[in-house]
Amino acid sequence: MHAEAVLEVLNYVGIVAFAVSGALKAGEKNMDLLGVITLGFSTALAGGIIRDVLLGRVPPVNLIYLPYSLTAVAASVATFILYPRVRSYKDLFLYPDAVGLGAFSAIGADVAASFALKHGYSASESWFLVAALASITAAGGGVVRDVLAGEIPQILRREIYATAAAVGGIIYLATLPAGREAAMFTTIASVTAIRIVSLWRRWEL
Amino acid sequence: MHAEAVLEVLNYVGIVAFAVSGALKAGEKNMDLLGVITLGFSTALAGGIIRDVLLGRVPPVNLIYLPYSLTAVAASVATFILYPRVRSYKDLFLYPDAVGLGAFSAIGADVAASFALKHGYSASESWFLVAALASITAAGGGVVRDVLAGEIPQILRREIYATAAAVGGIIYLATLPAGREAAMFTTIASVTAIRIVSLWRRWEL
Amino acid sequence: MHAEAVLEVLNYVGIVAFAVSGALKAGEKNMDLLGVITLGFSTALAGGIIRDVLLGRVPPVNLIYLPYSLTAVAASVATFILYPRVRSYKDLFLYPDAVGLGAFSAIGADVAASFALKHGYSASESWFLVAALASITAAGGGVVRDVLAGEIPQILRREIYATAAAVGGIIYLATLPAGREAAMFTTIASVTAIRIVSLWRRWEL
Repeated sequence: MHAEAVLEVLNYVGIVAFAVSGALKAGEKNMDLLGVITLGFSTALAGGIIRDVLLGRVPPVNLIYLPYSLTAVAASVATFILYPRVRSYKDLFLYPDAVGLGAFSAIGADVAASFALKHGYSASESWFLVAALASITAAGGGVVRDVLAGEIPQILRREIYATAAAVGGIIYLATLPAGREAAMFTTIASVTAIRIVSLWRRWEL
Repeated sequence: MHAEAVLEVLNYVGIVAFAVSGALKAGEKNMDLLGVITLGFSTALAGGIIRDVLLGRVPPVNLIYLPYSLTAVAASVATFILYPRVRSYKDLFLYPDAVGLGAFSAIGADVAASFALKHGYSASESWFLVAALASITAAGGGVVRDVLAGEIPQILRREIYATAAAVGGIIYLATLPAGREAAMFTTIASVTAIRIVSLWRRWEL
Repeated sequence: MHAEAVLEVLNYVGIVAFAVSGALKAGEKNMDLLGVITLGFSTALAGGIIRDVLLGRVPPVNLIYLPYSLTAVAASVATFILYPRVRSYKDLFLYPDAVGLGAFSAIGADVAASFALKHGYSASESWFLVAALASITAAGGGVVRDVLAGEIPQILRREIYATAAAVGGIIYLATLPAGREAAMFTTIASVTAIRIVSLWRRWEL
């Protein structure tokens, strides 16, 4: 119960940080409010939507579960209103963004692994799917953001973002024998740490 | 029966107007016939295809129901053949385009709301899904068109297009207690009116 | 049995050639290893993934069947390592690429036609779906590659690539009465021939 609440908090940290990143990109491109909401929403939730579509989980949870949708919309609108201020503190959001990367990677891995198990795939058959969907859940929204902004996706040029999320999928599977919660927290901690260290060492900035 | 026929006519108005808009964009970019058909088809029908995929309705109606597919292809080919003439009357298509926006918004809302009802979601749970899918049905094709043409989607820069379609989803739900047909016609009239007034007042051109 | 083995070999020829084409495009854009793998993987396998999503076949075979995924990843990594050499022999890959176009077109048509048959659609109802999915299976990956590379998709500008694959879908249906294997080999031979002749005659280069 307590563990679930912590997971959910980390998930919301990710939704807000990702939505801010999308809304800032829209601001850079002089988009209107709809563009800001669309890019904020997509950055935060499109990765999970793509994951759900690839697994046939419809309607995607990010479209039907209002607390997720409305958090992403609210964070986008807030960024629109406070644009100059949020923009000047942009670098501060790299830390909650790293937490979100970890949380989304763990959630994506958990959803994909549960799906694979339920459909009779062993871990040795499904590890690529799990790693791919961990990465898509965490980094797919950023790809959608950049394509909609008319740019080449950043993650294809700097290596340690989506790769960290894919590694998270493997870490999840490797630690799953210790239980789902343990696997998810290990994944979040590892992915967030990889991302923050890579930021410090400027591995990709 | 009569109402259904009117709805279907408005739907075809939208398919033709949207396909022309996609085919003209392909012409601007010097695409070949395949590019013209692809952009015309996508502008007219990709929004509905994305809606159907998000709801698990496969194969999407726009891919399997030949009258829709072939209307979009025929309108694209006609635009290709008559390119200079169609191009010079481009502004005339803004009116059937506005009708199409209304019709597609109403159809998207109707499909999403029926799906939500069938799967046990109440209107207070599903309103975001209904608004999102009304907007995606009506404006998603234009996003695909612009991405394939290497441009930032227009609707992210001018507010009253996709927003009108999303508002249409809410209008549909609000008027649904008066019956599905009443809800659809109210939605079409409202969205078309919002769009045309916004054109007149240059709210986004 | 023998026929199936030949089909599978042609399929792998396509996966490798398409992955090389994606990896080379990523190299041109100075992407990192993740970008090279993503573009290689997408070029080879995204068309089939989109086809499967449009038909509700989840998880898509290209994400769960490891020999396909890992072949695409391995070909991308090999291209990354041997980049200058592979790049200088780029034109040589146009021939296996043409074979892949044929194989993917035939496989896409086969999957779509089997689906349509199973769901009670006649050939006269489903021919557009079959042609569209043959084309998407074969040319959809190249569209994803170009969009991720920030370019207007090549196939929308030069006609004989995706069009050949769509024609393949019709050839498949026309020859299906002679049996599935005959239909697939006729499709592969025809599409590959159309593509190679169009290369020779510079119909689209």
